[in-house]
Amino acid sequence: MAGKLWGGRFTEATDNLVEAFTSSIEVDCRLYAHDIAGSIAHAKTLEKAGVLTREECEAIVAGLGMVKDEIAAGEMEFSDSLEDIHMHVESRLSELIGDTARKLHTGRSRNDQVATDVRLYLRDETKVVLELLRRLSEALVMQAESNLGVVLPGYTHMQRAQPVLLSHHLMAYFEMFSRDHERFSDALFRINVMPLGSAALAGSTFPLDREYTAKLLGFSGASKNSMDAVSDRDFALEFISAATIAMVHLSRMSEELVLWAGSEFGFVHMPDSFSTGSSIMPQKKNPDVAELTRGKTGRVLGDFVALSTLMKALPLAYNRDMQEDKPPLFDAVDTLKQSLAVFAAMLPKLGFNARRMGEAASSGYLNATDLADYLAAKGVPFREAHHRVGQTVAYAIREKKELDELSLDELNRFCEEAGPDIHEFLQTLAVVNRRKTKGGTAEENVKKAITEAKKSLGLEG
Amino acid sequence: MAGKLWGGRFTEATDNLVEAFTSSIEVDCRLYAHDIAGSIAHAKTLEKAGVLTREECEAIVAGLGMVKDEIAAGEMEFSDSLEDIHMHVESRLSELIGDTARKLHTGRSRNDQVATDVRLYLRDETKVVLELLRRLSEALVMQAESNLGVVLPGYTHMQRAQPVLLSHHLMAYFEMFSRDHERFSDALFRINVMPLGSAALAGSTFPLDREYTAKLLGFSGASKNSMDAVSDRDFALEFISAATIAMVHLSRMSEELVLWAGSEFGFVHMPDSFSTGSSIMPQKKNPDVAELTRGKTGRVLGDFVALSTLMKALPLAYNRDMQEDKPPLFDAVDTLKQSLAVFAAMLPKLGFNARRMGEAASSGYLNATDLADYLAAKGVPFREAHHRVGQTVAYAIREKKELDELSLDELNRFCEEAGPDIHEFLQTLAVVNRRKTKGGTAEENVKKAITEAKKSLGLEG
Amino acid sequence: MAGKLWGGRFTEATDNLVEAFTSSIEVDCRLYAHDIAGSIAHAKTLEKAGVLTREECEAIVAGLGMVKDEIAAGEMEFSDSLEDIHMHVESRLSELIGDTARKLHTGRSRNDQVATDVRLYLRDETKVVLELLRRLSEALVMQAESNLGVVLPGYTHMQRAQPVLLSHHLMAYFEMFSRDHERFSDALFRINVMPLGSAALAGSTFPLDREYTAKLLGFSGASKNSMDAVSDRDFALEFISAATIAMVHLSRMSEELVLWAGSEFGFVHMPDSFSTGSSIMPQKKNPDVAELTRGKTGRVLGDFVALSTLMKALPLAYNRDMQEDKPPLFDAVDTLKQSLAVFAAMLPKLGFNARRMGEAASSGYLNATDLADYLAAKGVPFREAHHRVGQTVAYAIREKKELDELSLDELNRFCEEAGPDIHEFLQTLAVVNRRKTKGGTAEENVKKAITEAKKSLGLEG
Amino acid sequence: MAGKLWGGRFTEATDNLVEAFTSSIEVDCRLYAHDIAGSIAHAKTLEKAGVLTREECEAIVAGLGMVKDEIAAGEMEFSDSLEDIHMHVESRLSELIGDTARKLHTGRSRNDQVATDVRLYLRDETKVVLELLRRLSEALVMQAESNLGVVLPGYTHMQRAQPVLLSHHLMAYFEMFSRDHERFSDALFRINVMPLGSAALAGSTFPLDREYTAKLLGFSGASKNSMDAVSDRDFALEFISAATIAMVHLSRMSEELVLWAGSEFGFVHMPDSFSTGSSIMPQKKNPDVAELTRGKTGRVLGDFVALSTLMKALPLAYNRDMQEDKPPLFDAVDTLKQSLAVFAAMLPKLGFNARRMGEAASSGYLNATDLADYLAAKGVPFREAHHRVGQTVAYAIREKKELDELSLDELNRFCEEAGPDIHEFLQTLAVVNRRKTKGGTAEENVKKAITEAKKSLGLEG
Repeated sequence: MAGKLWGGRFTEATDNLVEAFTSSIEVDCRLYAHDIAGSIAHAKTLEKAGVLTREECEAIVAGLGMVKDEIAAGEMEFSDSLEDIHMHVESRLSELIGDTARKLHTGRSRNDQVATDVRLYLRDETKVVLELLRRLSEALVMQAESNLGVVLPGYTHMQRAQPVLLSHHLMAYFEMFSRDHERFSDALFRINVMPLGSAALAGSTFPLDREYTAKLLGFSGASKNSMDAVSDRDFALEFISAATIAMVHLSRMSEELVLWAGSEFGFVHMPDSFSTGSSIMPQKKNPDVAELTRGKTGRVLGDFVALSTLMKALPLAYNRDMQEDKPPLFDAVDTLKQSLAVFAAMLPKLGFNARRMGEAASSGYLNATDLADYLAAKGVPFREAHHRVGQTVAYAIREKKELDELSLDELNRFCEEAGPDIHEFLQTLAVVNRRKTKGGTAEENVKKAITEAKKSLGLEG
Repeated sequence: MAGKLWGGRFTEATDNLVEAFTSSIEVDCRLYAHDIAGSIAHAKTLEKAGVLTREECEAIVAGLGMVKDEIAAGEMEFSDSLEDIHMHVESRLSELIGDTARKLHTGRSRNDQVATDVRLYLRDETKVVLELLRRLSEALVMQAESNLGVVLPGYTHMQRAQPVLLSHHLMAYFEMFSRDHERFSDALFRINVMPLGSAALAGSTFPLDREYTAKLLGFSGASKNSMDAVSDRDFALEFISAATIAMVHLSRMSEELVLWAGSEFGFVHMPDSFSTGSSIMPQKKNPDVAELTRGKTGRVLGDFVALSTLMKALPLAYNRDMQEDKPPLFDAVDTLKQSLAVFAAMLPKLGFNARRMGEAASSGYLNATDLADYLAAKGVPFREAHHRVGQTVAYAIREKKELDELSLDELNRFCEEAGPDIHEFLQTLAVVNRRKTKGGTAEENVKKAITEAKKSLGLEG
Repeated sequence: MAGKLWGGRFTEATDNLVEAFTSSIEVDCRLYAHDIAGSIAHAKTLEKAGVLTREECEAIVAGLGMVKDEIAAGEMEFSDSLEDIHMHVESRLSELIGDTARKLHTGRSRNDQVATDVRLYLRDETKVVLELLRRLSEALVMQAESNLGVVLPGYTHMQRAQPVLLSHHLMAYFEMFSRDHERFSDALFRINVMPLGSAALAGSTFPLDREYTAKLLGFSGASKNSMDAVSDRDFALEFISAATIAMVHLSRMSEELVLWAGSEFGFVHMPDSFSTGSSIMPQKKNPDVAELTRGKTGRVLGDFVALSTLMKALPLAYNRDMQEDKPPLFDAVDTLKQSLAVFAAMLPKLGFNARRMGEAASSGYLNATDLADYLAAKGVPFREAHHRVGQTVAYAIREKKELDELSLDELNRFCEEAGPDIHEFLQTLAVVNRRKTKGGTAEENVKKAITEAKKSLGLEG
Repeated sequence: MAGKLWGGRFTEATDNLVEAFTSSIEVDCRLYAHDIAGSIAHAKTLEKAGVLTREECEAIVAGLGMVKDEIAAGEMEFSDSLEDIHMHVESRLSELIGDTARKLHTGRSRNDQVATDVRLYLRDETKVVLELLRRLSEALVMQAESNLGVVLPGYTHMQRAQPVLLSHHLMAYFEMFSRDHERFSDALFRINVMPLGSAALAGSTFPLDREYTAKLLGFSGASKNSMDAVSDRDFALEFISAATIAMVHLSRMSEELVLWAGSEFGFVHMPDSFSTGSSIMPQKKNPDVAELTRGKTGRVLGDFVALSTLMKALPLAYNRDMQEDKPPLFDAVDTLKQSLAVFAAMLPKLGFNARRMGEAASSGYLNATDLADYLAAKGVPFREAHHRVGQTVAYAIREKKELDELSLDELNRFCEEAGPDIHEFLQTLAVVNRRKTKGGTAEENVKKAITEAKKSLGLEG
């Protein structure tokens, strides 16, 4: 078992099939910079604890710097027989600086080492996600601001319901991504805790100052229980669940864009640069970005299922199953980041078709609720008003007219309370701007919401 | 379409099959108290807005009180033809107080109404969950305190690794449930937002003071965008994802209890009152509570999948699909609450077998790391020390001895640095108490952790 | 422990909380008829084995008949303290026929008993599902037949692609449900295997003729390994996975119906009897059945996740976790059956709008591929033809014309090969009927497919 | 849009971010051989249809052969701008043989092309899976045969229940993998159907003989509906669901191996070549293969969730979301194959500890059911017998004796029917061999089961 750093008690070599099956280097090589940062902090902590001399520590730190540069330059060859990124780094360090390297793993296990690496990695990526969410939010607010005045049908059950401002519709997504931002910020607190020094599972026998290590690595503090520290993957589950919710938001917007880009709606013009064509049908221009994002949603949900199922019923502390935490976590990180980035780039280029939207908002009895409200304001109990307007709509359908195309006489057959002001009352813009309750779609509200949103994003008014 | 409150424009009755298929009353009847609370606040807001007179409002509030009492007393008969709890309440209110009831739905839709009901419900249930987590944490700390001094093997890969205190092991779970408490507390902020007044999707035309409604219902504020308000189920997804993580924690403890209760481990005595027997094997006493809890974990994960899949790619705003949010949400709430409650009750009754645990901790070379640390402290690079101790272990296995049963001569064959203090150094308790780094298993650390935990739970030291 | 049938070795009563937590009677009471059928077969097998006399057997069989009638009549009160349906039945049998009842459980455990009950139940339900699939398929074929001649756009990426027959579109769903039928038929083979006589896990010491029992119950045979028999839930997993796929099919059709029912498409008229209205918007008529079905899809997928996660890593043989197999299984059965039934009832009542469909099929360059094929048939390499037609489309968009509205001159600018036959060539019906490859949308193909489908369903041509 | 094969109508280049986001070449490059096989068959079909001359066809077939060799030799450079494997192959073919290559895509779309490629791929992989299942089954049967006579405790609820033969226990897994074999065989029928010739979604205008293409590619036939053919991913869902169930079986065996390899059970000796060590604890030898396999189970379940969620609610026909079918499908294929292969290799090397197993089977009242059966055979109703033996066990626990260590006098206190034959009756081997019902653990049964299994695997008796 020469070669294996743990092979003292073994008498038989690892089966090749097993080496390939158990190796994680193909997956965890992306952690190299975090692994090395963790090792540098560990070396300094060992020096502080008197385990390493200053010279030894310096040699290790310098050597690790060289290893990092080599990997960054693509000069390291990864091999299944060295199992994982930790062994690759340590093994190369040994080649570079000799025996001192073999002191680095004092007071440390791969169990606390990998937990530290993944947390460092995920802390960085969470910050990237937060920034991408901010950029996406900014793009939404900007589109909301420049499309003020555009009216489209608000839908429920995919049926035209009531007219709303496009800006209001877009700001609904702003709210969703704001919540995502909050959720990832909350998760970051639980990610940013340092496990190093928990060793295999029981803590270390060396006088390691773990708060010092935490400070060196920018963690908010050291974990409180060593068994929990090496067996906890809550932070990954929490990240992936937040990512799933964010992907659900993107998939909802995607669904709308796909529909709006079709001939039936015709609400949005997708830029050529964000579309692709068909290998057989020359006329096609497809909203691929939206479709792919929608399709990737299940993938992130699947990642949550994979990791939850993995962790379910694992006894304490570390189990090798947990090596399989990385494929779903990395997949969720990559998928979310790519999707947010491409949406943030695409959104400003969308061209909304105000004419088609406006026409759609004026047809299909979207002002029926307002007629009922009109009656209710005149004292008709709302249920009664609702019923009468329902009959009015049935009549109008038969007549192939919109409500505001009915004469006052016709209206009075069902709604005797209707007066001469009724036709103006039912105009689309009047309908929109009458909804002034907080959060409603009236233009003055939406303007205020945009101003507040810009302020929260640090954009000038 | 007499009978249907929305039937004005319909000319054909609902198919019976459809009535049964679309009805949600069997599921949402549990929301009756929250629905009525929401309606009372809405009535008062309508009064403030001048839509209802004080007398009308008082009649409605009084009537709703009667409806609530009737339902609480089991006197209401639920029927598919009245669809949901909202229609049942309103319909009964009409019977009780007449026409005034028909004004209650002014400025409101079932879309914002149900969102409000579910948030009120989930706010209450989240508080219950927080309290159950607290009780469970208390039970863990109490068991940790009363079992101080009990040593058992710490496991990695289900192989004996290093000896730890049972109290330390239990406190690892305390950490998990503390994180759960944090996560549910964070979620509560996003649950406690009021949608009422968003109406169908676009806001209301009546001058409703939504912050007043929010205050009446104890919400922290009113939602900011009406389309988001009626189509958002993030709060439910976030609750279920937090519930999934908490169930994973319970399932890990369950797995250990099931194993520990078996003859092979023999670490724990399950009380008769928390076990059941076999219909065929007279000797059996089964750890059913732990098994069932473990089995219920997938169920809550399945609930998350159900709701995420439901929400994926739904266009704005409300869609009827969202009625199906309740079965998974209610199932997750019930399952988590029951599991936490039964664990909080069972934990104090567990009898740990200190003798079996201690014996297991003393057999299987759990002090091998310490021998390596001993050598490392004498200047042997850790990797070298690890390798030599590996060979020592291989020798000891052949000799059928534990490390501390090897003579100094035998030890010196592999570890020449070993001195006469080595046998005492390798004693189990010495091994445990040497791990004094923060979060390590040394008794003085664990005592400190227990004291802090009790303080955080508001228990006297 | 009086009362518990397994309480001989217990000295302490079951905690109330535990009784409620571990009881399954609320869920498994639906198995009563299958449980009794199994018990009758077991009694007869015990008689054949000489364990029961003929008189004892007859008394038991008669008594079980009475118990069944009582439960069917709603006369049995279920109680958590009797745990499950097995204990309820046996306990009531004891009350009715006295001591002989206590011999019934000889050579049997609840482990093999419940496995038998669930398989009997699922066999029945699978047959119901097969019949519902048949009815749904029939409805599809009938609509396909009566709408022959209706053309609508075929979509890819939700963009109009090529014109197809509505009948062809409907027959695509026929194919999906045919595969579902196959899959459930395959599953039925693995469901229809009898576990009884496997006892707790190791088989029985009594000379039970298990093939006789299997024959009495209509099983295709007895299971081959007792440990597998009591710990296997593959048949439930397989059923739920097939149900998930079937729900995906229904959800795809639902999505289309929801879209088609909207103003933008206007392709389908939903009957009033299969729609519901809005509590606030008097004009609304919502396609609730389709929406709810779409929403229920995630639920069945969640059931698969729940049961897979439950079974993952369970050691042999029976574990109490497996009691939790029933909620997801029953939920999947119910959800699928309801959804299939309501679709089978709704489909014949859908009114397709041939005019709107036809107009949509004639606008948006759906014949562009045919122009390219025209060129290819004249020897232009297809890639070249595709490119030139792409430019033609770009030109036509600028001119706001359809391809067949371009003059021959205009066409010849890009496609010099186009001759005077080109305009007729590009007509929608010509485009449809040119696709005569097997499985293509040409009317003669679709007619043939309908004829074959009717034959396979046993309908006269 | 030079370079894009579909770019005729586009005026703006694809955004780089979009190119990277929409490209699938990194994932689908593994399909190259299947893509080329499909293209060769398509070319021959085009020749048969008169679209290509014999010379053109031969040039294409020869060129495709060269492309295949180049890719196999690692000489092709993949690039996001060529999107996918189809475009890479066609583009390289053009470079090699010029303009004729541009005729290949006649009558074909990427929609039917990719469906064909994936089905060809999955057909091959399913056959590999079937063979791996066969090898694993063989390993099980061989271990079962060579360990005949070894007794271990059968467990329920992880409590010792009744003694069973190790061979019987292993043969339970044989049953599971036999069912997996059946399930994949059934799935293969639905995989092996040919979509080519369905073109974009509506079929082709060229007289393609699709049954001829099917025959060339070894498919059982051509698909029946073109819209279904390009939008169907049932075959992938069915494969992944079968893979999930197979992984559940592997994870159950893994759980047992992990437990059995620990000190508490000590039932199995893991070969060094299938274990790895610890970086910190020199004594550790970990059952990594079993742990990792257990951990990978969730991953395959996650793949099913990903693809089901993707397909849910997709309207007909092809949507770009479906490009995301490959990551979960390929991951499921790879994970299952690797796990089966490593298990098939490991199983023959496991060393079972017959002594430890035997001791465990003789301690813990595993013969209690037999004492009850003894009484029942003497006419005591089983419920009564069960109760009395329960009391006997309680007494024996107090006396710290096994049942067969109680004197006849002691036994008679509870079981007066016990005679002088009772002690022999209760011996472990007697207990095992008394279970002669079909599927029971008696040695004669198990031998027969092994013989039948060998026959079914084509092994000589």
